[in-house]
Amino acid sequence: MPEIRQNIVTREWVIIATERAKRPEDFVKKEPTKKVLPKFSSSCSFCPGNEGQTPPEVFRLEEKASWLVRVVPNKFAALFREGICERKVNGIKRSVSGVGIHDVIIETPAHNLTTALLPEAHIEKILQVYRRRYLEVSEDPRVEQVILFKNQGESAGTSLEHPHSQLVGTPLTPYQVRNRLEEAARYFDDTGECVFCRTLQDERQDQVRLIAENLHFLAFIPYAALSPFHTWIFPKNHKASFGELQDEEIPDLAKMLKLVLAKLYHGLENPDFNYAICSAPDKEKAVEYYHWYISIVPRLTKAAGFELGSGMFINTALPEESAAFLRSVQLPRLETGFNT
Amino acid sequence: MPEIRQNIVTREWVIIATERAKRPEDFVKKEPTKKVLPKFSSSCSFCPGNEGQTPPEVFRLEEKASWLVRVVPNKFAALFREGICERKVNGIKRSVSGVGIHDVIIETPAHNLTTALLPEAHIEKILQVYRRRYLEVSEDPRVEQVILFKNQGESAGTSLEHPHSQLVGTPLTPYQVRNRLEEAARYFDDTGECVFCRTLQDERQDQVRLIAENLHFLAFIPYAALSPFHTWIFPKNHKASFGELQDEEIPDLAKMLKLVLAKLYHGLENPDFNYAICSAPDKEKAVEYYHWYISIVPRLTKAAGFELGSGMFINTALPEESAAFLRSVQLPRLETGFNT
Repeated sequence: MPEIRQNIVTREWVIIATERAKRPEDFVKKEPTKKVLPKFSSSCSFCPGNEGQTPPEVFRLEEKASWLVRVVPNKFAALFREGICERKVNGIKRSVSGVGIHDVIIETPAHNLTTALLPEAHIEKILQVYRRRYLEVSEDPRVEQVILFKNQGESAGTSLEHPHSQLVGTPLTPYQVRNRLEEAARYFDDTGECVFCRTLQDERQDQVRLIAENLHFLAFIPYAALSPFHTWIFPKNHKASFGELQDEEIPDLAKMLKLVLAKLYHGLENPDFNYAICSAPDKEKAVEYYHWYISIVPRLTKAAGFELGSGMFINTALPEESAAFLRSVQLPRLETGFNT
Repeated sequence: MPEIRQNIVTREWVIIATERAKRPEDFVKKEPTKKVLPKFSSSCSFCPGNEGQTPPEVFRLEEKASWLVRVVPNKFAALFREGICERKVNGIKRSVSGVGIHDVIIETPAHNLTTALLPEAHIEKILQVYRRRYLEVSEDPRVEQVILFKNQGESAGTSLEHPHSQLVGTPLTPYQVRNRLEEAARYFDDTGECVFCRTLQDERQDQVRLIAENLHFLAFIPYAALSPFHTWIFPKNHKASFGELQDEEIPDLAKMLKLVLAKLYHGLENPDFNYAICSAPDKEKAVEYYHWYISIVPRLTKAAGFELGSGMFINTALPEESAAFLRSVQLPRLETGFNT
């Protein structure tokens, strides 16, 4: 019989559709992307030599006069970088000026690499840049929330091949974020514990949904995963805001992010995916009931009318089976990072 | 400058990305679906003659010994039709048995028609079947919420060509539904009015986001539409539950649904779309602060990492421009229904 599970963090119910469930192997891409990308593409604005094609750089991390990671304003920004933020309330029509920051983080000079294939040491650099920009943008008095995310592949919303992620600093706290903060606060009031710390503890004990663990991070398929192979990476260090990521945690986070994405890459034949860093707003970084984390969603199924009408998801993969599958995926020795 | 608008009903903020906005014409499908479907397909389980290929029929509407609309259990049901509903609470792991109803409504014997092309009189029949099954399934003591929806086209989550919609009766109230009921109740407490009735009144006055109006229904692009051409159809009759749809409203709803879908079909070259009927749970049908409606989402853009991390949407179409475009779409005379 199918089971409807509640995600204790988001409070959302998910139908784990065991009757129409597929085996983990059924999610392996039938026609693997065989397109071999060049290391350099002269028509790509993110490739070295084409730096003039992007808006003026916000930040660059460099080594021996060549850049490793670049941050530039998004050319097609969703928000205006300049201008003051005004709220307007006109009856039931409420609006806020669309000001804020919208950056693109060009993750590497190499056109053809993805997180799964980048060296861990390089992913550390990307994470350092994430944290740096997260903190800088949070200082902007207009910005209430900073969202870091990555879209990879057409079905994940991008046609740009060059490895990149994005940062958006919005002049308001999104409803969903505020809602989850409230739910976490209520759980804290009811139990005296952080719902994320409790989840960490529970997943470590249950074992069945674990993907991997290291000193500072735990990766697992949530009990009520929204969609097949939906994965969470939780820091063990209880902090509400991503900006509190410590130097000593960065190598472990790089290892974990690479490990999960490499398992998806090799196990499911390079699926399109999104990830997002979910954090309390910087102004609420001191709250004791929240805990930042990373959510990774491979794009293997589509939300449709049922999700539109109910907000509920139907997941055709059993979280425990997906986790077992990912645990079993063997990575090529070169990419485990152990020999680098 | 872009504008961030709040949807007063869902409380969600949407970035109306005017700077990267497209003209309504830019959403017209570049390669219109030229595949001409046959009126009958021998390999389609929903076509006449193949009735034995579906699970045993739940209901049929017929005329002169041939069926017009059939309702059958979904062969790949997300929920078990039989069995009792149990709630389990095991620490933070909460689950409900996956029992409930999952029907498919085969909208017409014709393989090649879509709502935009069906006669209004036939859409009335479909709506009668919707209401009938909505009420019947609501009687099931295990069912808390009934969701009626339609997926059309690959990017809307279905590869089945034959016109069909679905009904799911869940043994719990989805979090999103409960959340919206709470927000509507709060609005009612604060103002003494129904937020939906107020929106109706506001949209009629503003005019700029209207698509069409008849005696019983209003179709418009919401002020904070989630995505390009996202459309709402509101009944003027203030009722919380779709089950309260009156006989005299059905012809007007059929007209309105056909009109909106025909304008999308002809104006945007047959885009894939979802629609869902959003309703209070039947048990709460008497609440004075809620109001059922239909939400239509053409699949023209993709949600990605930003939406995952924030719950906010970026809409690259200005609602007022989309509405003006749809108002201007001329329908072929045959399909307006005026001459049938």
